Amino acid sequence: MTDRVGFIGLGIMGRGMTRNLLNAGHAVTVWNRTAARMEEFVAAGATAAASPAALAAVCEVVILCVSDTPDVEQVLLGEQGVIHGIRPGSLVIDMSTISPQATRDLAARLAAQGVAMLDAPVSGGSEGAARGTLSIMVGGSEADFARALPLFQAMGKTITRVGEQGAGQLVKLVNQILVVVNMLAVSEALLFAQAGGLDLPKTIQAVAGGAAGSWMLSNRGTQAIVRDFRPGFTIDLQQKDVRLVLEAADQMGLPLLATGMVYQLYRSLQQQGLGHEGNHALIKALEHLALRQVGAAPDA
Amino acid sequence: MTDRVGFIGLGIMGRGMTRNLLNAGHAVTVWNRTAARMEEFVAAGATAAASPAALAAVCEVVILCVSDTPDVEQVLLGEQGVIHGIRPGSLVIDMSTISPQATRDLAARLAAQGVAMLDAPVSGGSEGAARGTLSIMVGGSEADFARALPLFQAMGKTITRVGEQGAGQLVKLVNQILVVVNMLAVSEALLFAQAGGLDLPKTIQAVAGGAAGSWMLSNRGTQAIVRDFRPGFTIDLQQKDVRLVLEAADQMGLPLLATGMVYQLYRSLQQQGLGHEGNHALIKALEHLALRQVGAAPDA
Repeated sequence: MTDRVGFIGLGIMGRGMTRNLLNAGHAVTVWNRTAARMEEFVAAGATAAASPAALAAVCEVVILCVSDTPDVEQVLLGEQGVIHGIRPGSLVIDMSTISPQATRDLAARLAAQGVAMLDAPVSGGSEGAARGTLSIMVGGSEADFARALPLFQAMGKTITRVGEQGAGQLVKLVNQILVVVNMLAVSEALLFAQAGGLDLPKTIQAVAGGAAGSWMLSNRGTQAIVRDFRPGFTIDLQQKDVRLVLEAADQMGLPLLATGMVYQLYRSLQQQGLGHEGNHALIKALEHLALRQVGAAPDA
Repeated sequence: MTDRVGFIGLGIMGRGMTRNLLNAGHAVTVWNRTAARMEEFVAAGATAAASPAALAAVCEVVILCVSDTPDVEQVLLGEQGVIHGIRPGSLVIDMSTISPQATRDLAARLAAQGVAMLDAPVSGGSEGAARGTLSIMVGGSEADFARALPLFQAMGKTITRVGEQGAGQLVKLVNQILVVVNMLAVSEALLFAQAGGLDLPKTIQAVAGGAAGSWMLSNRGTQAIVRDFRPGFTIDLQQKDVRLVLEAADQMGLPLLATGMVYQLYRSLQQQGLGHEGNHALIKALEHLALRQVGAAPDA
């Protein structure tokens, strides 16, 4: 029998993911804090639930994609939470990015009720969610992974089981260290290029194919030099993920010089009211220090 | 008439480049400070010169690939330097990585003798030099670039004229900012992964294809986790290039937080006697701070 699927959290990521589950032919029940957001999915064939508990009562697999650790705790354990409706033998898949330690604690709470859990945070932004090309980093048992795989395949492309519960979140945080420090590299490189009077598109073209190459350079660097700071992923959300990195690093007694610096730079941008811009607006913090601006917007 | 080519500097890079010029059928005269290194090239059909001046007297194009700014100045302007043999109408191509400002000064000195100059630093390491797959970043006039192009095509793959004299060196320094700060990102990410008990090859595999991806992660990261610190490019040479970045940034009044930090971290490794290791041994400086080690060498 095919699992009936519940999806909680129809935000910037969850919307595309739910759409792709429906397109793949899955029966999907949805719940969202702001109820109006459910309407378009009901129109597309989904069923709306009245609460996370009500959703869990009619599904064998409950997927979550919400913002932060407290949101996941509220949706799972709160007054109308999943835990009050879910039946033994069910599977919870948390696709949010939250604390690895909190993940292990939640998994233990669910296990006490006979419910399995996978942490399966994603990378690839809203474009990846919409196109079904997300990278999905999964922590949990082999059997639970196998059960969830058809669902993951509807939402993502690179799907990797990276270890036991919590490992998915840890790998996602590794991903975020790389993303933000690579963007720090891109920011310093472009500021240097600008100060030296170089042609910025030509400079990126000359170096992107070699040892200096990165996804952030080819994608966010080329946006930054035309002053396009629309978010693939906002500073506010990126900052939240970097905070999770630094909290986990603190617990492990690990110093992270560059990642810690990026956290402070993002904070300065949030203070300037730029938290809604894309994470590549990190370059603006360095521009502010250098009293220089990189590139120019194309003529209107 | 085809230009007769001189090549000065048969070091780790120059050897492969000279070999590829010979393989492409060019007549090549060589000079090297340590004369014994010329022997294998004479055996392969090159002519050995007694000095840079003597080499310049019999060539229309003089290529240099030596270590640092003072070496280029010595080879071009020293007692037996190129400038004492070269004839008007000739072209000097400096493929070393040196100061952009010194490059412009040298170009002016040569121009006063009717000699043109291109700065054409490379990226791609000794492997790229041997295979003829270097990235070559060229500064200078369109006409000089066109004259040199057949020679560049024998040595490299991505060949980009990036601007006027000095621009090649500036773009190379942009390249080096990206290389070292991307390696800083890889180092922090792998330390975090190790501290979290993750499977390191699986972690790299899960994130390398997405927004976290970089050449340094896929190439040097995978070397670092098996404790393979053999140099594609040594810390001593990398440190020299980062010094050129910081000197140029100082002249432009530009603060570079992360690049400056990497410079200090490399200095700590040089103090430990590790300057001969690959630039990805940057991770050892962070391991030293964290009292942890990433990965393990494969069983012998």
